[in-house]
Amino acid sequence: MCKTLLSIVILAAFGAHAARAEQDLASLRELALKDQRAYAVLESLTTEVGPRLAGSAADKAAVAWAQAKMKALGFDKVYTEKVSYPAWVRDGASSAEVISPFPQNLTIAALGGSVGTGKDDVTAQVVSFDSFDALSKAAAGSAAGKIVFINQKMARSRDGSGYGAAVTARVAGASAAAKIGAKALLIRSIGTDAGSRTPHTGVLRYDAAQPRIPAAALSYVDADLLARMLTRGKPVTLRLQVLASVRAGEYSGVNVIGEITGSTLPKEIVAIGGHLDSWDLGTGAIDDGAGVAMTMAAASLIGEQKTPPKRTIRVVLFANEEQGVYGGKAYAAARKAADEVKLQVIAAESDFGSGRVYQLATKLPEAQLASLAPLFDALKPLGITQGDNKGSGSADFGPMGELGAPVADLKQDGTEYFDFHHTANDTLDKVKPEDLAQNVAAWAVFARFFADRD
Amino acid sequence: MCKTLLSIVILAAFGAHAARAEQDLASLRELALKDQRAYAVLESLTTEVGPRLAGSAADKAAVAWAQAKMKALGFDKVYTEKVSYPAWVRDGASSAEVISPFPQNLTIAALGGSVGTGKDDVTAQVVSFDSFDALSKAAAGSAAGKIVFINQKMARSRDGSGYGAAVTARVAGASAAAKIGAKALLIRSIGTDAGSRTPHTGVLRYDAAQPRIPAAALSYVDADLLARMLTRGKPVTLRLQVLASVRAGEYSGVNVIGEITGSTLPKEIVAIGGHLDSWDLGTGAIDDGAGVAMTMAAASLIGEQKTPPKRTIRVVLFANEEQGVYGGKAYAAARKAADEVKLQVIAAESDFGSGRVYQLATKLPEAQLASLAPLFDALKPLGITQGDNKGSGSADFGPMGELGAPVADLKQDGTEYFDFHHTANDTLDKVKPEDLAQNVAAWAVFARFFADRD
Repeated sequence: MCKTLLSIVILAAFGAHAARAEQDLASLRELALKDQRAYAVLESLTTEVGPRLAGSAADKAAVAWAQAKMKALGFDKVYTEKVSYPAWVRDGASSAEVISPFPQNLTIAALGGSVGTGKDDVTAQVVSFDSFDALSKAAAGSAAGKIVFINQKMARSRDGSGYGAAVTARVAGASAAAKIGAKALLIRSIGTDAGSRTPHTGVLRYDAAQPRIPAAALSYVDADLLARMLTRGKPVTLRLQVLASVRAGEYSGVNVIGEITGSTLPKEIVAIGGHLDSWDLGTGAIDDGAGVAMTMAAASLIGEQKTPPKRTIRVVLFANEEQGVYGGKAYAAARKAADEVKLQVIAAESDFGSGRVYQLATKLPEAQLASLAPLFDALKPLGITQGDNKGSGSADFGPMGELGAPVADLKQDGTEYFDFHHTANDTLDKVKPEDLAQNVAAWAVFARFFADRD
Repeated sequence: MCKTLLSIVILAAFGAHAARAEQDLASLRELALKDQRAYAVLESLTTEVGPRLAGSAADKAAVAWAQAKMKALGFDKVYTEKVSYPAWVRDGASSAEVISPFPQNLTIAALGGSVGTGKDDVTAQVVSFDSFDALSKAAAGSAAGKIVFINQKMARSRDGSGYGAAVTARVAGASAAAKIGAKALLIRSIGTDAGSRTPHTGVLRYDAAQPRIPAAALSYVDADLLARMLTRGKPVTLRLQVLASVRAGEYSGVNVIGEITGSTLPKEIVAIGGHLDSWDLGTGAIDDGAGVAMTMAAASLIGEQKTPPKRTIRVVLFANEEQGVYGGKAYAAARKAADEVKLQVIAAESDFGSGRVYQLATKLPEAQLASLAPLFDALKPLGITQGDNKGSGSADFGPMGELGAPVADLKQDGTEYFDFHHTANDTLDKVKPEDLAQNVAAWAVFARFFADRD
């Protein structure tokens, strides 16, 4: 009897605690929905720093901006960790000119990591492939001395799955083209903005076994134009000038880290964040200023509440995600070296623009899943459902996930993301303040839940 | 009785004739709605010629293209008339760079007719004005040594009236800025594409009393960005490089003219057309490839019918409209010199993109208006209503209207026109084939009516 009574008392106390926690999450959510600091942070970053290509002067300016902004937002600990990488430089606007049969200019952008054409432009005939797959099956020598054009379209979808299906053309296209003798590569931009004259840049990887050839993306409109020219049945000759180079040696950047220190379990870490670097064509508003601003705002808001979080909420603003997840890899390597992986309660990055979160996927021990009910209850009014338990942590916390740390993905609606992704049009006006607030609410609830749960 | 009988017979014959004419217009309209040659012509022009800045090599290519295409489309008479003008050249992509306090690049395009900055860039502080009106009221010397920024927005509307209200900033801004001491002018693009990084070019006029200063348009997004920087209360300094020049001497281009010769009144002219030149940033699909294609297609379709038109249908493809209506002025001057103004039955130009026609305005002797009923009956199923009798003939037939020739305007829906007008995004994909067909139907009915009416 006594034992049963004790159980009842304990259960009642626990129930009250759970109910209060739920109430706290709901209050925090509502506060976040009205909070405007994420938009203000993003406005500040895009206006006062703008494009911040890894390794550039603006990248350094962004680091200084981030440190100052974190302090202003109430993070009690702000520091940096070194990240090294080879720095790539765009040396100017690349150009492509149809020499014959129909002289006119095409709009292109060099791919990240591409070598330049140097002072001697590449002038050669175009040979077109409908897909990366078709290119990779082409016979040896079949593009000898030519410019390969990969005319592969990306499909629009909420979850961005069209990107994964198309992006190999950008990442591996140059070496596949070089393998069959090409002098340069042009791809249809990996994007969904069918009516735009704005090319999409993004990183490529050279296969060490092949010669490094210059590579650039045509805007969607220009890819259409080139494709129409090719239907005329006459050889199409282009003059291509790609202005880009890789700096000698390694460049040292930093991950910028800010913390809201936990009250009772400060060594245990709830890690969220985004990447601070951006491509150089736009102002990096959606990629990934939004992720930076939303996670900073969510942590800052939690830091302002009367009751501090039990665990530490850490916001990591990663260096050079765009050219190879250098910041994310360095973060994981540092945690591993310090034997801190086990202290990471959860890690999740926001790096998919500013569309609304519609689902939370996790990667946690299965036994813990049932205990997430209060989290999903608090997320439900935001339109967020429970996803599978195959989360990745997104690009920059992916390496933490691979080390066995629990990770999660707050999946965002990416229907429009690839209209602007990696282009000059990645600017503040693409961000809807109400969508940003919905994200902040999701991140605040998510972080607070993992910071406080038993 | 006999007289009355005769009247009845005459009236009956006349009635039958009118009914047949009406039937013919309706048949022609339905044929045109199904006809695809306008889109094919436009596809050919934008693919095989592309941008065709007046005075450029591509302008000459466009003339050759137009002559060949008119012959292929069955025009029985194809010829050219000389048009002289000073040729302006864009010498490369202009650039603007914020030097302080927030270094980043802004996207600009030199205005047509602008002088260049030469080898020495202009580096100066920005002074902002909310409108051309505010600039023109500013005190002498108030922009001494500075770069003036006119931050005036254009309103979206179906009839394009927002353009007229805003465009003075582009046309007269440079000299107004020079008058108060400015070294250069930047304007917010005259356009309605609020989320685009694509500046709108367009012509300026220098006032001979002021020094000629370089002038360029910021994209809408970049104008927003600069405006946000200016709200920080710190001086904003820009480095501006405008690459443009005016060639020495006069350039000789041509109006290209094609005719479907009339059967019984060949000297009487129904004149329609568009302008063959375009700005150099896009491929001139909507400005004015569409007008060129639609009027060529309408005349060609009429030429294919069993019964030839009584009067001659003349399609005029004007030279250099963009930089000062040179082709239109030359056409009118030539008609005046040959005493042919009185032979022009009607003249109307299509130069407002590819949006649907919703109204036909005329400028005819009032007594003739009642006789237009069959025309408006035939246009009604296309959604076209009768406008006022204050038509202009549009830019290129405006000078004919001023000489007293009857003119008309087929008013098009321009709601989206100024999203792309004078930008790199003026490309084929902006054109809906079904809208193009509606225009061709309107032009075919319009031209046939005036060619045949008693």
